Amino acid sequence: MKPERKIRIGIAGYGNLGRGVEYAVKQNPDMELIGVFTRRPPDELHCSLPAFQISDMKNFKDKIDVMILCWGSATDLPEHGAAAAEFFNTVDSFDTHAKIPEYFRKIDECARKNHTLSLISCGWDPGLFSLARLLGHCVLPEGKDYTFWGKGVSQGHSDAIRRVPGVKYGIQYTVPVQDVVEKIRNGEEPELKSSDMHLRICYIVPEKGADLKKIEETIINMPHYFKEYKTTVNFISEEEFKKNHTGMPHGGTVIRSGKSATGLKHRIEFTLNLESNPEFTASVLVAYARAIFRMAKEGKTGALTVFDIPFAYLSPEPDEKLREKLL
Amino acid sequence: MKPERKIRIGIAGYGNLGRGVEYAVKQNPDMELIGVFTRRPPDELHCSLPAFQISDMKNFKDKIDVMILCWGSATDLPEHGAAAAEFFNTVDSFDTHAKIPEYFRKIDECARKNHTLSLISCGWDPGLFSLARLLGHCVLPEGKDYTFWGKGVSQGHSDAIRRVPGVKYGIQYTVPVQDVVEKIRNGEEPELKSSDMHLRICYIVPEKGADLKKIEETIINMPHYFKEYKTTVNFISEEEFKKNHTGMPHGGTVIRSGKSATGLKHRIEFTLNLESNPEFTASVLVAYARAIFRMAKEGKTGALTVFDIPFAYLSPEPDEKLREKLL
Repeated sequence: MKPERKIRIGIAGYGNLGRGVEYAVKQNPDMELIGVFTRRPPDELHCSLPAFQISDMKNFKDKIDVMILCWGSATDLPEHGAAAAEFFNTVDSFDTHAKIPEYFRKIDECARKNHTLSLISCGWDPGLFSLARLLGHCVLPEGKDYTFWGKGVSQGHSDAIRRVPGVKYGIQYTVPVQDVVEKIRNGEEPELKSSDMHLRICYIVPEKGADLKKIEETIINMPHYFKEYKTTVNFISEEEFKKNHTGMPHGGTVIRSGKSATGLKHRIEFTLNLESNPEFTASVLVAYARAIFRMAKEGKTGALTVFDIPFAYLSPEPDEKLREKLL
Repeated sequence: MKPERKIRIGIAGYGNLGRGVEYAVKQNPDMELIGVFTRRPPDELHCSLPAFQISDMKNFKDKIDVMILCWGSATDLPEHGAAAAEFFNTVDSFDTHAKIPEYFRKIDECARKNHTLSLISCGWDPGLFSLARLLGHCVLPEGKDYTFWGKGVSQGHSDAIRRVPGVKYGIQYTVPVQDVVEKIRNGEEPELKSSDMHLRICYIVPEKGADLKKIEETIINMPHYFKEYKTTVNFISEEEFKKNHTGMPHGGTVIRSGKSATGLKHRIEFTLNLESNPEFTASVLVAYARAIFRMAKEGKTGALTVFDIPFAYLSPEPDEKLREKLL
């Protein structure tokens, strides 16, 4: 069941996540990186790995065991995910929640037809947080669950504030409302919307001479992104921005609060605290790539999610060792 | 893959854990309880379920899908676990860590021979905490993990203090050292023994005229149990004991603290807070009994641990629903 040779990994897409995968593979001695596949001219990629054009991918069919798709969920994965699954076992981090069923069907069909195996929607949310939610539901069927995100940088919200006229640099942190977290820890089970659970804190470097009042008004009234939330806008210098706000920390907490049949209360809590969202996400993808390699070797085909994969498959250690050391 | 009829559950052993399973099955409408098997005279069991002698168990071979073994790890499971696996798919909570490999081999051999499926060492530790440890190792291969237990009642330590002459009632709480927890949360990775991580707090109702000083000395110097730990002994009235110290709360935290290859830090934390240790443990066993039922139906035999079971098998919901609602 455990591999006798190194697992050969390919990276499709070389943004923050792709670079994260490059780093993560270095921490896993049972794996090796074969190359990076990109839409940019490969020579222009600042990358120590062999780089190839996306169109060359199919020539690597027998040279790569698992292709980790480091593309975005908006257009790249829906457009190219299935094409990759035609040639490779794949792992991706598709995270448009509403479209997961449709995406799953598409990848599943393609992977079955081509006898490949694809893990979709891996990472930490969806991914590890989904596992925590499912475990909570199964172990405490009478209860409620809550997902808090942050403190962390939301790329979508940061992009939104950067589109506001007069904003030179901007970043948005999503922050859980600590009072609400504590209420739930104390056994309350309130009905909550995301906007009851999170604050949105923005740091902005304005263009010279920009109308700060107007920037603030535009942001706090932006529908969907900020209007429903308690939003704070802070103007800072470019120097402070570059010193303190260029990282991509994130994290959050999934809480399941429930009762056994006698009425006694129980709480399950899963928390992540990450200095780099893309690097941690990549670490999750890489561990799951090992599982996909092994399950594909056992003859499994089609699409899977983290719900379908036993944790033993994530580890390079033999099962006896896991039982001895970690059980 | 999901069952068309109710899963028929048997309970072997009717102490706190067995009663917990009885309660937990009530919260799972896809299951039904067939009966309780006991070594005591079945009539003397205060139980609304049909009760039978252990020796009758084998007559239920075709009437029970999963037998949940609610026996202790000291003698009952090692002596009778394999015999139960001869007739039934089983789930147990064997928790003598050092003997898990030996116990696994014994059950595995018996279950393979008899075409049954057995999950050993389920519950929260071993069990859910083991899953958290394994996940941490796989996702953050460069790091350290820490398991804190408590605040909660340790049965073994409570039994030990009740054997001290002059002690009428006694209970022992294991409590994590909060400063140490915070250090780890702040990214330190100290080398720690269990005694650096936990306090032991005892509440004792002395016999009339007992020598309190002597009781305290005996406890705090008891090797293995207390001598290495910071131990506090509190003498209280019988009234206070009965009011505040008859529950069985427990819980704890597993922390994995690690780095990605760039040196950035990440923390994974899994916490349980339980008003009743046996009722929560039982809830875990019952969710896993569903998985064992389904995996046995698929033809799987032998012994398994929680490491071998995908979370999707724990849920009564179809996979599409899980992907739609929880991913």
